[in-house]
Amino acid sequence: MIPFNKPYLTGKEIHYIYDAVNTGKLSGNGKYTQKCQQFFEKAYGFKKCLLTTSCTDALEMAAILINIQPGDEIIMPSYTFVSTANAFVLRGAKIVFADSRSDHPGMDESSIESLITNKTKAIVPVHYAGVACDMGKIMEVADKYGLFVIEDAAQAIDSYYIGKNGKRRALGTIGHFGTFSFHETKNIISGEGGMLAINDEKFIKRAEIIWEKGTDRAAFFRGEVDKYGWVDVGSSFLPSELISAFLYAQLENLQNIQEKRLSLWNRYYEALSEFSKANGIHLQSLPSFGSNNAHMFYMVCKDEGQREKIIRSLKDNQILAVFHYLSLHASKFYIEKHDGRNLPLADMFSERLIRLPLYYELEFFQIDQIVKIIEESLIVD
Amino acid sequence: MIPFNKPYLTGKEIHYIYDAVNTGKLSGNGKYTQKCQQFFEKAYGFKKCLLTTSCTDALEMAAILINIQPGDEIIMPSYTFVSTANAFVLRGAKIVFADSRSDHPGMDESSIESLITNKTKAIVPVHYAGVACDMGKIMEVADKYGLFVIEDAAQAIDSYYIGKNGKRRALGTIGHFGTFSFHETKNIISGEGGMLAINDEKFIKRAEIIWEKGTDRAAFFRGEVDKYGWVDVGSSFLPSELISAFLYAQLENLQNIQEKRLSLWNRYYEALSEFSKANGIHLQSLPSFGSNNAHMFYMVCKDEGQREKIIRSLKDNQILAVFHYLSLHASKFYIEKHDGRNLPLADMFSERLIRLPLYYELEFFQIDQIVKIIEESLIVD
Repeated sequence: MIPFNKPYLTGKEIHYIYDAVNTGKLSGNGKYTQKCQQFFEKAYGFKKCLLTTSCTDALEMAAILINIQPGDEIIMPSYTFVSTANAFVLRGAKIVFADSRSDHPGMDESSIESLITNKTKAIVPVHYAGVACDMGKIMEVADKYGLFVIEDAAQAIDSYYIGKNGKRRALGTIGHFGTFSFHETKNIISGEGGMLAINDEKFIKRAEIIWEKGTDRAAFFRGEVDKYGWVDVGSSFLPSELISAFLYAQLENLQNIQEKRLSLWNRYYEALSEFSKANGIHLQSLPSFGSNNAHMFYMVCKDEGQREKIIRSLKDNQILAVFHYLSLHASKFYIEKHDGRNLPLADMFSERLIRLPLYYELEFFQIDQIVKIIEESLIVD
Repeated sequence: MIPFNKPYLTGKEIHYIYDAVNTGKLSGNGKYTQKCQQFFEKAYGFKKCLLTTSCTDALEMAAILINIQPGDEIIMPSYTFVSTANAFVLRGAKIVFADSRSDHPGMDESSIESLITNKTKAIVPVHYAGVACDMGKIMEVADKYGLFVIEDAAQAIDSYYIGKNGKRRALGTIGHFGTFSFHETKNIISGEGGMLAINDEKFIKRAEIIWEKGTDRAAFFRGEVDKYGWVDVGSSFLPSELISAFLYAQLENLQNIQEKRLSLWNRYYEALSEFSKANGIHLQSLPSFGSNNAHMFYMVCKDEGQREKIIRSLKDNQILAVFHYLSLHASKFYIEKHDGRNLPLADMFSERLIRLPLYYELEFFQIDQIVKIIEESLIVD
């Protein structure tokens, strides 16, 4: 039996949880929360990081920070997780869905400008599979129209955008905000968990307030105010120290985890290279402006039938491969609210994309086994 | 040094976290989430429980479930935590603050009817210190005007409302919804954490959807739909299994924890009984319709100066006693939005209430020590 995903423990998670317990501080914003935030700020160059209970919550914080009002429009891909949209729908925004690129499920950057109206407030690019959107193009459009950019980097930890000058910038550091996930399916995990990264300093103070339930508690503990009270809207966005302690152990092993995942990814890519060409299957490819964080290994099948055959064969051999998002513009919840444009590429990825097992403890021989079954699945019929 | 609070570990928390890790499921809604939810449903008679990342999030779920629209009015006490209000403010509601009872910081039930307008949508009683509001009176008014009732039972686990017929009903089971907190300062804890309890069955299905990010994923796993998609608004309200596993160990020791806390509470009460009378201090008292869950031991001082003396004396002896809420109607955030009514009793509790250390590992001799310092603090001056 090969599961689709298996959470990996580096070994120190429980030790750090014990330590957190011993400090007598298990609620949010303790020692391990600080350590994780500082790690990210230092490693990738975010101005300020705030851990959250999920990437969803980080997106919700961003939506509050940019003061979304009912009727505001947000441009994002249709091929994404529901949370990308929900965070803004909860504030009353209208979602304007962009189609995917033909070579990648991420939004077609060249379509963005035509979707902008005088109600547009923000662009939310999603770095699908940890692969960069063309942030150069997106920031140019955003600057031209004075729009906010929130990078949904849920899958994009330790991944980079490579500018025309060759300069690498960590995903999530380029827009006004970046949002990350540490859900158990991600490269580094805390079960559920997330982070808001803030790149524009003017948002930091208010972000801390919103994070701490709308109070100036953070300023109070820094001695900047003499008592803390209700100064803004907010929620309980901060995770328990149990979560942060677990996460910190993962961060200490980030490099090791990334190397292992990349080796697995490469094994898949090499093993499937010829077979995919011969069968009209497209393997995940990297744009010139993106690095590979080996978050996911996916293929885009020739058609839905072919995908179904592969998934079925793998399942018959107790291997779990899965498809991914259903286009949000065609969802039961949004189809009546959507403006009616066809988004054929998002639908195509909904119908044809398949994700193969990829997790730290996966072995090369298992990948070879998976590849063999995939190959046979198309011969047999 | 005696801290105000100290998180208590029953001993099995880490064991259950290990076990959760070994199941390969660390994200939300796994084995321990189910076990905790079933525990609460069975022990207290909730129709359905859903763990959340905080009581704040449980309140936000309730606000979404009752379809709060901009301009809707919500009646709640001014003397409460910011989250009680924020959850509704985030949905665009106007908060109509009620004053406290003279004998208890909870809302004055007799004032509610006069605050109702044709925009009122819900009443949110807060069971301060785990002591019941007069739910008979509140439900009567709510029924008369067709209002929702959301019991903010953040502090009220294992506490009861005693009806006129003598029947005990667990707090959080009486309104349409009850919301609980497992923050490290509560009787049973998971660092950060909470729960939405649903008492009206018609909300269960949608609650599960909102909890699972607006998708029908729960129905999918029960085999009721063949694929799951975006069907409603929602957020990532469900906690990591790390949190639920920790919480489950606490639940197994609930009775033991409660007995110990109650013995500490009684020790304070007896030791301070005469002294308080002689110095114009009111000790926390129980109404005829409420039980004691020993969440908190508080006193209401004669005036702010007296409170200040006590806090300072304790602090000089390395003992941490603290005041509590600042009236929300007078907060920086809401003072301009508030309708201008004076709420003198809420202000009185803001100025005079003091909470003494109360946690599982506190010892009787420490309580005697605390009491002695309090007594001396008023003599010395």
